[in-house]
Amino acid sequence: MARQAEVTRLPMAAPDDVSAIAAAIHAGRIAPDRIVAVLAKTEGNGCVNDFSRGLSVMALRALLAPFLPADRLDALPLVMSGGTEGGLSPHWILFHETGAEAEHAPDAPPALAMASALTRPLHPSEIGRPAQAELVRDAVARAIARAEIAGPEDVHYVQVKCPLLTAARVAEAKGDVATDNMLKSMGLSRGASALGVALALNEVDTLPHRAIGHDLALWSARASCSAGIELTQCEVVVLGHSAAWTGPLRIAHAVMQDAIDAPAVAGLLETVAPGAGLQQAAPRIRAVLAKAEASSFGAIRGARHTMLDDSDISSTRHARGFVGGLLAGLVGRTELFVSGGAEHQGPDGGGPVALIYES
Amino acid sequence: MARQAEVTRLPMAAPDDVSAIAAAIHAGRIAPDRIVAVLAKTEGNGCVNDFSRGLSVMALRALLAPFLPADRLDALPLVMSGGTEGGLSPHWILFHETGAEAEHAPDAPPALAMASALTRPLHPSEIGRPAQAELVRDAVARAIARAEIAGPEDVHYVQVKCPLLTAARVAEAKGDVATDNMLKSMGLSRGASALGVALALNEVDTLPHRAIGHDLALWSARASCSAGIELTQCEVVVLGHSAAWTGPLRIAHAVMQDAIDAPAVAGLLETVAPGAGLQQAAPRIRAVLAKAEASSFGAIRGARHTMLDDSDISSTRHARGFVGGLLAGLVGRTELFVSGGAEHQGPDGGGPVALIYES
Amino acid sequence: MARQAEVTRLPMAAPDDVSAIAAAIHAGRIAPDRIVAVLAKTEGNGCVNDFSRGLSVMALRALLAPFLPADRLDALPLVMSGGTEGGLSPHWILFHETGAEAEHAPDAPPALAMASALTRPLHPSEIGRPAQAELVRDAVARAIARAEIAGPEDVHYVQVKCPLLTAARVAEAKGDVATDNMLKSMGLSRGASALGVALALNEVDTLPHRAIGHDLALWSARASCSAGIELTQCEVVVLGHSAAWTGPLRIAHAVMQDAIDAPAVAGLLETVAPGAGLQQAAPRIRAVLAKAEASSFGAIRGARHTMLDDSDISSTRHARGFVGGLLAGLVGRTELFVSGGAEHQGPDGGGPVALIYES
Amino acid sequence: MARQAEVTRLPMAAPDDVSAIAAAIHAGRIAPDRIVAVLAKTEGNGCVNDFSRGLSVMALRALLAPFLPADRLDALPLVMSGGTEGGLSPHWILFHETGAEAEHAPDAPPALAMASALTRPLHPSEIGRPAQAELVRDAVARAIARAEIAGPEDVHYVQVKCPLLTAARVAEAKGDVATDNMLKSMGLSRGASALGVALALNEVDTLPHRAIGHDLALWSARASCSAGIELTQCEVVVLGHSAAWTGPLRIAHAVMQDAIDAPAVAGLLETVAPGAGLQQAAPRIRAVLAKAEASSFGAIRGARHTMLDDSDISSTRHARGFVGGLLAGLVGRTELFVSGGAEHQGPDGGGPVALIYES
Ligand SMILES: [Ca+2]
Ligand SMILES: [Ca+2]
Ligand SMILES: [Ca+2]
Ligand SMILES: [Ca+2]
Repeated sequence: MARQAEVTRLPMAAPDDVSAIAAAIHAGRIAPDRIVAVLAKTEGNGCVNDFSRGLSVMALRALLAPFLPADRLDALPLVMSGGTEGGLSPHWILFHETGAEAEHAPDAPPALAMASALTRPLHPSEIGRPAQAELVRDAVARAIARAEIAGPEDVHYVQVKCPLLTAARVAEAKGDVATDNMLKSMGLSRGASALGVALALNEVDTLPHRAIGHDLALWSARASCSAGIELTQCEVVVLGHSAAWTGPLRIAHAVMQDAIDAPAVAGLLETVAPGAGLQQAAPRIRAVLAKAEASSFGAIRGARHTMLDDSDISSTRHARGFVGGLLAGLVGRTELFVSGGAEHQGPDGGGPVALIYES
Repeated sequence: MARQAEVTRLPMAAPDDVSAIAAAIHAGRIAPDRIVAVLAKTEGNGCVNDFSRGLSVMALRALLAPFLPADRLDALPLVMSGGTEGGLSPHWILFHETGAEAEHAPDAPPALAMASALTRPLHPSEIGRPAQAELVRDAVARAIARAEIAGPEDVHYVQVKCPLLTAARVAEAKGDVATDNMLKSMGLSRGASALGVALALNEVDTLPHRAIGHDLALWSARASCSAGIELTQCEVVVLGHSAAWTGPLRIAHAVMQDAIDAPAVAGLLETVAPGAGLQQAAPRIRAVLAKAEASSFGAIRGARHTMLDDSDISSTRHARGFVGGLLAGLVGRTELFVSGGAEHQGPDGGGPVALIYES
Repeated sequence: MARQAEVTRLPMAAPDDVSAIAAAIHAGRIAPDRIVAVLAKTEGNGCVNDFSRGLSVMALRALLAPFLPADRLDALPLVMSGGTEGGLSPHWILFHETGAEAEHAPDAPPALAMASALTRPLHPSEIGRPAQAELVRDAVARAIARAEIAGPEDVHYVQVKCPLLTAARVAEAKGDVATDNMLKSMGLSRGASALGVALALNEVDTLPHRAIGHDLALWSARASCSAGIELTQCEVVVLGHSAAWTGPLRIAHAVMQDAIDAPAVAGLLETVAPGAGLQQAAPRIRAVLAKAEASSFGAIRGARHTMLDDSDISSTRHARGFVGGLLAGLVGRTELFVSGGAEHQGPDGGGPVALIYES
Repeated sequence: MARQAEVTRLPMAAPDDVSAIAAAIHAGRIAPDRIVAVLAKTEGNGCVNDFSRGLSVMALRALLAPFLPADRLDALPLVMSGGTEGGLSPHWILFHETGAEAEHAPDAPPALAMASALTRPLHPSEIGRPAQAELVRDAVARAIARAEIAGPEDVHYVQVKCPLLTAARVAEAKGDVATDNMLKSMGLSRGASALGVALALNEVDTLPHRAIGHDLALWSARASCSAGIELTQCEVVVLGHSAAWTGPLRIAHAVMQDAIDAPAVAGLLETVAPGAGLQQAAPRIRAVLAKAEASSFGAIRGARHTMLDDSDISSTRHARGFVGGLLAGLVGRTELFVSGGAEHQGPDGGGPVALIYES
């Protein structure tokens, strides 16, 4: 019997608005105990003092608590990504199994498969360093196995949520830390996680000394990493294709080489719906998962950008809104999971994009 | 003998960096006394306290002062639009005549034509009210005549720069003003100017009572208006096609119906370069002139946006970055003149777009 | 037997950090069922999209839920004021009764007394209009009675939390609303509440037509009002002196005439601790409750301020940080409840200040 | 014959408003060729993209150009400090000599003395490093001599304006730089300058290895340093007392130990006007010069502050507004030169304050 993955995108009227999820549970469209992971775009600033993420997590946990044992709830990846700049629309994306019993049609193609895994808690001295990358690498491998995905080449997207360094954690490590700057630790933690994914997926062979945060030529084409203050371990969600799963859902990915690499996205849309016109594939697209960032060298195709010089708006906010506009124009929808901070996730100034769609 | 228009786009390393213009003048590519208007995207916040605009104007005037009589310089439209959110790149766009003597080829098609006109200084009580619309309407008509454009139907773009209300001006009018709120007066002034353009171009027949700022169903498809604290009259620049002009440059326009109306822009690009692939027409495009705004009803195609609820970033900044990303993805370049605040310029949440290109 | 009021100020490491309250409850220093109201300064932006307030409320309700019946918890005023600009420190202030049985000493002076009351839910068409002021006036009177305060002249501080207008509520009222602008509705609601307090305390005789939001010469010296999206009724907390209460706590108030009216605050401190030097009364001060705002006329004692022209930072954020610095300098502490938006609360540009102290 | 120093404080209606200076020159109150330095608080964000500073410099240079030879104008220290957060008021402070011939009264006390000096242009590899400190140290010594101040102990305030590292300068130094981060280079440059002042004034004996930016226990009580993109050398202005100068003006300084150290300021005011009440010395105070910053350890007297965690507002903006409120409350005026970024200028979280006053 094959498993079947479902991906349900739902609107959010405010960070604590879980009413659409409650309705879907009530209507039997989502079984709480079959939820594999929840992602959401929430409307905070996506930076250090973004409380929309914590509010969404608290509301979501309150909704799910009656349905799940506490340890199941604690282990469920809840990845809130702050920042709906420009016209981006706050929304939930639930990854769940249908529980439907389905026969393996002998010639059925591999379908969307998914699973999660956790690392052990990280010691503060490990955050943003090779130890973190190795722990993430091993967790990705475990999630691949749980998802019954044949191998790294069938993985299209890995979401990682990872811890950061606070003043208290720096003190705990007696100063033996990658950085004592909280914002910088978010970038190093994302980068270490991304390189861990790259190792697991054979995108990078080994991790050179001092590569994390420095050697931006090393990157994963399938990692999407975000850092959060609320956890000490890393949560990993793997999405790919597997013959052990069935149903109409598929996933595809590409890498934007820079912030205006529309052709890469157009190519991905051509995979989803060959020959369809601009924005015509929208009804078949369940989720768009992308990373955005300002190039560290201050330019896009030779023209200066000002994202790194703006002391009023964080560059991550600029990048999300801008890449969000590009993606919304091509896809025809504003409920897009565009996440900031793409260190070692695609090249400098670019990042991975994945589409989940009905085949 | 026919006139020939030239449009020169130049980079800007900082708001006061006029070095690229100086070099073009020195090299004989731009004759200062043949400049018709200068537009620029500068890197301030584009709102009330954007000093990048004033700095650019001061630097530009200092550069041009040795070449032009003071009254010519004073009458020259210098339209600085603040805000290069996302990956947008600060740049200058110079509209100038080549001065080349060219024979009228009998079968030559109409080419890009341009001219400017000024209204008289507005009394504060006129700002944002029908009197302003009427003054702009008349100035547009004068500019059309000066550009030797046959009629309103051959106009593709009208740039208006208009005054706003300050506390001092409100006091001067003894309170008989459209609003005593400075930021709100910018919107009303832009809106009155846009409706003046709409009247001149026969897009609107008459101006109903209290339409300005309220009846957003009335709009121009070809107006682009910005308000500035430094002027008391309105400056108008008209761009269109005319048989009295020659050369390879052409202009085309469309209207984005909402912030993600990529098909409208794609249609425009198809006009410029039929059959060219995504981003392939870039080398032939001299300038992209667009308006962006957050829809007042808080949604894009039914999905909530958060631009109007963000107390940290003005909605105009959100809109410019987002629409800028969409345009950059389609065009393949980040030097785009995307201006915020599109009241009565295209529908609510949408706005006009014009392309100047080599035919 | 007399009642005894206690005011406990506790630190907050994050908006959802209720650990200090939990510890105080565990240690028996606070009895959950004797809490009259909770105020807090949380670290969001204090404007429309401040999610730190909702996060604090959710965490606090989760903490108190096991101790209180649902209807008691729902009726408990939880007034989260966003914005700890400058050096202000996030903190909780719990107003509770000790429950200690104390004899009335025949010559004991009146002590700090407190009580709360709720209005009925407001119809959207009532928000920011005289109907709201009248409802608040009546609730203040009820709270005075419950606190056994002899009369309005013994009241020193009234905290009101009131609703605002959202798009949904505007639609519900079919447009019959004071304003359709969400941010503006917060100011009108605060202003209507403040004038309701002024009516109850005999500071204003009657409410002239169109006074709310316009006639800033009408104000209360003892009202502190904040608007929140999460409620539809008004919550009122009254603090004053009463012979029915005992214990060492007292309250005093003054009005800052402008944003730099340090002498008014110094006079208040002289009341608390006659002859004490600068910052020397700090150990005896339990809570500082103040309102701050930018003067609408753009100046302080004739010198221009820029708070209203800053499109990057809301004027309420500027005002809180600035007045917070003044108060912290005089008091010697940064845990100060400085709240923004002082419409009809003290004069234009100024606001009330109250101190709760040990006599 | 003795020299006489004058300090003229003038309002500014906008960054390019030099009308008050023009009027003072026209009225003969300021002789352009006797100006020693100009300081100003301008209303930008005070961070990387603050264009109000450049606009003020351009307007001021245009005003002074007809009066001064180009090399004199180029050598004149024009120190624009961005950021008038809270109620701070934009203003000019002109330091000039009266030119009046005055006899030395034999028993006249030393009066305010002032002079400036420049370092040679710094190589990018020197910025933020000991070489910069040594160059500043030597320039301070030269300025002391020019001002005819007897020795370091008679110096009360040293203003330094110093360069920062841009991407172009980093490239010029082939990466041999203190940091490749522009914002961080501002702090290191300010810190190196401050330690240069400390060396010149015998506040610090020697500069230990790696002290700049790290060993915050080393600081000057009299340095005020700001970094600007527009210069490559360091400009130094020294203020002190000297028997070679006459007139009523004096200067005094103190150090705020933290952001709420009002007693230090009150002590200074007691020097200026012994026994005067709160705010009563204001008419005799010509200028208030202060530094403000967020403590790096995240607290003020043990209470957490949130300035370093706010991704929407730079900590320097928070600190200026907050300390500005404290100073305005004590002094009774909002035209205060409060400058952000006090690395090695006073202790961590605190900074120097100087008052210029009529004796
Ligand atoms: Ca990347
Ligand atoms: Ca529009
Ligand atoms: Ca007030
Ligand atoms: Ca310091």
